[in-house]
Amino acid sequence: MLLPWTDIELPEGLAAAWYGGGALPADDLSGVEFYVLPYDSGTEPAKLIGRLPSLRVVQSLSAGVETLLPLVPEGVRLANGRGLHDLSVAEHTLALIHASQRDLPRWIAQQATGTWEREHTRSLADSRVLLIGYGSIGHAIERQLVAAEAVVTRVASRARADEDVRGISELPALLPSADIVVLVLPDTPATRGLIGAPELAALPDGALVVNVGRGTAIDTGALLAETSAGRLRAALDVVDPEPLPADHPLWKVPGVILTPHIAGGSASFYPRAKQLVTDQLHRFATGAPLLNLVN
Amino acid sequence: MLLPWTDIELPEGLAAAWYGGGALPADDLSGVEFYVLPYDSGTEPAKLIGRLPSLRVVQSLSAGVETLLPLVPEGVRLANGRGLHDLSVAEHTLALIHASQRDLPRWIAQQATGTWEREHTRSLADSRVLLIGYGSIGHAIERQLVAAEAVVTRVASRARADEDVRGISELPALLPSADIVVLVLPDTPATRGLIGAPELAALPDGALVVNVGRGTAIDTGALLAETSAGRLRAALDVVDPEPLPADHPLWKVPGVILTPHIAGGSASFYPRAKQLVTDQLHRFATGAPLLNLVN
Repeated sequence: MLLPWTDIELPEGLAAAWYGGGALPADDLSGVEFYVLPYDSGTEPAKLIGRLPSLRVVQSLSAGVETLLPLVPEGVRLANGRGLHDLSVAEHTLALIHASQRDLPRWIAQQATGTWEREHTRSLADSRVLLIGYGSIGHAIERQLVAAEAVVTRVASRARADEDVRGISELPALLPSADIVVLVLPDTPATRGLIGAPELAALPDGALVVNVGRGTAIDTGALLAETSAGRLRAALDVVDPEPLPADHPLWKVPGVILTPHIAGGSASFYPRAKQLVTDQLHRFATGAPLLNLVN
Repeated sequence: MLLPWTDIELPEGLAAAWYGGGALPADDLSGVEFYVLPYDSGTEPAKLIGRLPSLRVVQSLSAGVETLLPLVPEGVRLANGRGLHDLSVAEHTLALIHASQRDLPRWIAQQATGTWEREHTRSLADSRVLLIGYGSIGHAIERQLVAAEAVVTRVASRARADEDVRGISELPALLPSADIVVLVLPDTPATRGLIGAPELAALPDGALVVNVGRGTAIDTGALLAETSAGRLRAALDVVDPEPLPADHPLWKVPGVILTPHIAGGSASFYPRAKQLVTDQLHRFATGAPLLNLVN
């Protein structure tokens, strides 16, 4: 076992080494059968995959493993971290929406100058939210939006009438009545550039565009134009490109809030990730089927 | 009728004048029987109460009417705005908690300098929240906290075993295991100074103190000491005194977020307030019992 944490309870008979990211370990890893990649630690950890001759399982702690899959040798199973980030991403989504609707950047700026100046703000309650991407993260976001009494319309790649989910193809009809659009989409050929100039133009004045999926879903130039003009607002945890260059004009647009792709990385991830790894090791040791396999 | 908005549908037979706050109206108001005070408009509107000889009903749009009650003449009914602000206050509470847990002030500061620098943050999920004040706003806050998978302990002035509500007297036992304390209390002799130096000292390191009720519930000096020392964090929509003087040291303490008593004032208030006024006028016109009477 090669694990990112030392506080995992190992099934009897299994031995572990630890690698938390950074420079590759110098230990003899020729016996490693199960490799849990350290989370959110850059590109180094994936390089180990090809150097472990006994490898049977690669466990990623990310939901998206599209860049990892080509590195996994024939016969080695790859499991992803589906679900581990749902709550973290969902609550960061709510943080971004609340910050935008309730003008937090204004109050934080006033605080810096000791200014007590009041004004009424927008609400999330009653807002019509178009939730584009209705997987496990989308479900978690929806629960929190509904608790805040927002009015949610679900959109996914394909319509599912039984779940009241609309298809992506209905976007032109749905965008004009959205106060808030939330994007929770993976990076695929179908999602790239999904929200471009025509889609943004279809939104009503003052609408808020939120992205917590992948930056490529939005045409950055088109969003820059609409937000710079003051017609739309945005709250983005992901952008295209990432990192956003220091001199990119989007950083400074009023009505735009940017966070550096941190939605998934918060405290609630760790206990869930450790529980999954503990479960998987137990399954591995007893020959039970592994969870979250993607190949 | 003296109303703060011109877009209320009046019951047949009733006539209205409008007063939205600011300088008192010069119109002849001697026939006004029903006065809806403009919301959040300072101290002027209340002065009209004593100058309306035909007055039968005063409708406030605030939840707390303790300062209004002494101004209402014998025989005139006073109704409050209970419930109109619940969602607005609840969502601002979530905004403050998310902003603190997910380090929004840091990301907003980074945005100003175009800095893409990532770090994991706290979560709201899994956090142990002590919700002190369990009226209608407390219920709305709880629904949103639970949707975010926080672990809520309810506290009210008196324990109610059937609702799993703990009493204020149990605070000393409850504070040491709270990650987040949320105060939603009115200003009464019993709540004044409820959270002082000993209560703050009982909280664990790094705990977050949130106040969206009345500023007097917390000893400001004691909170300043604990936050300045970096031991506790705070997110406050209300403080004691209000407005907080421009040179008050609390404005500048890292880990403290201050908003200027704006939790109740957001867009979701208006449709609810107009609906209540429409209902009340209809009840008044038909002789049905009024809602939200406090005298």
